Amino acid sequence: MLQTPEAPWTENETQCAHTLLKKAYEREVKNLLADIQDQASQITQVDELWKLHDFLSAKRHEIDGKYDNRESVIVFVFAQLLKEGLVNADELGFLAGEKRAKIKALARL
Amino acid sequence: MLQTPEAPWTENETQCAHTLLKKAYEREVKNLLADIQDQASQITQVDELWKLHDFLSAKRHEIDGKYDNRESVIVFVFAQLLKEGLVNADELGFLAGEKRAKIKALARL
Repeated sequence: MLQTPEAPWTENETQCAHTLLKKAYEREVKNLLADIQDQASQITQVDELWKLHDFLSAKRHEIDGKYDNRESVIVFVFAQLLKEGLVNADELGFLAGEKRAKIKALARL
Repeated sequence: MLQTPEAPWTENETQCAHTLLKKAYEREVKNLLADIQDQASQITQVDELWKLHDFLSAKRHEIDGKYDNRESVIVFVFAQLLKEGLVNADELGFLAGEKRAKIKALARL
């Protein structure tokens, strides 16, 4: 059976997607900040400080590349965010059904 | 006037220098840890978190290269530590007078 081509993104879908992406980014950095503050407050040895630095380096790099809003990749980005709990399925309600289904399927992989 | 060549390092000078270097390193990382914990506790924005990361990257790099205990460079290392208040002049009492004088002169540069 031939796969149905995905419907093009409407302007509303694109705008809502960008807004949700921004919201997820803000959630992620808020969580990261709380985590760093918690970790930092518990450090007593310099080795742990370097570990915190390594952790923050990796997180910064990850976040820098993660919130890619190009139409060609955005379903993969949302799938990852759904998997990580940074967006929830209800928040994807602005998307046409087949896009939502694709994101949910990808998030289960 | 020809410069008097520096007296060779005695075994005692070398051992005491290594011990003092270690002590200064411990002071520096202790101060750094307190500073990072203080900075981290005050962060409210992600930009400040990335600034903290940059600061920690620079400090780690600086500290990695700083505590060089080779005889050829150790007077420069002590001069820098004296300048920064990480060792004090009294702690250099184990060194022969001309070495101490050289370190103090370099620290004033």
